[in-house]
Amino acid sequence: MLVVKIGGGADVDLEPTLRELASRDEPWILVHGGNAELDEVSRALGHEPRFVTSPSGYTSRVTDPETVRLIQMVYRGRINNEVVRQLQGLGVNAVGLSGVDGNLWQAERKEAIRVVEGGKKFLLRDDHTGKVVGVNTDLLRLLIDHGYRPVLTLPALATTGEAVNVDGDRAAAAVAAAMGATDLVILSNVPGLLADVDDPESVIERVSLAEFDRAQDAAKDRMKKKLLGAREALEGGVQRVIIGSSNRDSPVADALAGLGTVTTR
Amino acid sequence: MLVVKIGGGADVDLEPTLRELASRDEPWILVHGGNAELDEVSRALGHEPRFVTSPSGYTSRVTDPETVRLIQMVYRGRINNEVVRQLQGLGVNAVGLSGVDGNLWQAERKEAIRVVEGGKKFLLRDDHTGKVVGVNTDLLRLLIDHGYRPVLTLPALATTGEAVNVDGDRAAAAVAAAMGATDLVILSNVPGLLADVDDPESVIERVSLAEFDRAQDAAKDRMKKKLLGAREALEGGVQRVIIGSSNRDSPVADALAGLGTVTTR
Repeated sequence: MLVVKIGGGADVDLEPTLRELASRDEPWILVHGGNAELDEVSRALGHEPRFVTSPSGYTSRVTDPETVRLIQMVYRGRINNEVVRQLQGLGVNAVGLSGVDGNLWQAERKEAIRVVEGGKKFLLRDDHTGKVVGVNTDLLRLLIDHGYRPVLTLPALATTGEAVNVDGDRAAAAVAAAMGATDLVILSNVPGLLADVDDPESVIERVSLAEFDRAQDAAKDRMKKKLLGAREALEGGVQRVIIGSSNRDSPVADALAGLGTVTTR
Repeated sequence: MLVVKIGGGADVDLEPTLRELASRDEPWILVHGGNAELDEVSRALGHEPRFVTSPSGYTSRVTDPETVRLIQMVYRGRINNEVVRQLQGLGVNAVGLSGVDGNLWQAERKEAIRVVEGGKKFLLRDDHTGKVVGVNTDLLRLLIDHGYRPVLTLPALATTGEAVNVDGDRAAAAVAAAMGATDLVILSNVPGLLADVDDPESVIERVSLAEFDRAQDAAKDRMKKKLLGAREALEGGVQRVIIGSSNRDSPVADALAGLGTVTTR
């Protein structure tokens, strides 16, 4: 079982990954993002995106009720339906699901988020974000065993009943761990964890569990969360997590062949 | 097997129907609309909705590629995810699906639509609309047999690969016929087919297949398509189609008890 996460950056090319997945015999689950289009639609509707940073340096989107609505529209509505449509065109009987469908991603809603802004720490309350704590593996297995290929995206369903924003990389990690996946491939517009963020040639090729603390300290922005997702997947039993580039001819095969940052236990 | 279609008018109250469905033991499939919210989001994004009328008097939405994108966002993204979330909160393990997922609603895309405007007839080309000609009953049965409840919405998937707009009432009729449903309940903000559109008390209580032509001639706007859907369902083997009001305490039970316009073969 292979789980592939593909990011939602503006310059992420989905097509090579979808084409590759369509030609694979082994079952897979695809998880996708949608950040760039979410920002775009938010702005077009006059709802300027806002981000906050935690004391440990993790960036996250401020998720008020209107942002949840936008996540449903963009991730769940537009992008998910479009990815499924493209896969259907490639002969894959794909089925799109959000974490709300079949209670697929059960999340613990965060009471409050610790935030640093202008050097000051404070608690952000009433934010609709959470962390995936359970996965409906029965539904995923049911679909896969009958030839369907699940395509997953935000939002998740909080145990308290609300639709919540969760980090896509970590949600993919939760799926990979729960499904006993051998590999988790995390694709985005960067080629891996970089020693120097300005030098795309400076990919760090291997990170073991023992080296994660240092790697996470060194990583910037989104990469921090990818590493956190990778770590959680490995701790959950996944054998390898490869962080690689989506913008190649064969992003999945290349990642599985070791191109990018390969993390292992 | 019961199929319930609930419309997407601005004053349609979903809550009583969802509550009723949640308390039913018999399996069901819910199909929902989203017209009012689609109009609202379209306008907010500067894409004014446009409607055309066919020579036989059927009104339909002009569906350019941007409208398909908006349908995905509003029907598939926002409303579907929200209905599923509410059902989950009521203890129903609902799963949202568009017609694209699992190739659920296979549609024939219309080459061109005949339109009357300002007394002139012309052909509207490049419209992304179609008619459901096939239903993936295997996927619906698989989910239902394992305790899930499908919640279906637009768009459908054209045999030519595009996501297309289809009429929700007729798509629900196709599902009811394909699944061998006993009853199809079509709920909206009107209490049934009215003899006088300005008098909500003038509900025509019974329409048999033999009386459809006359009823369809008399019906206005959306009701015309509801009757067309009802007719197609009956011709497809459904025993009863009831057109009733969504805005009651027990819309489904009342419809099944005969409140509204009951159509039979």
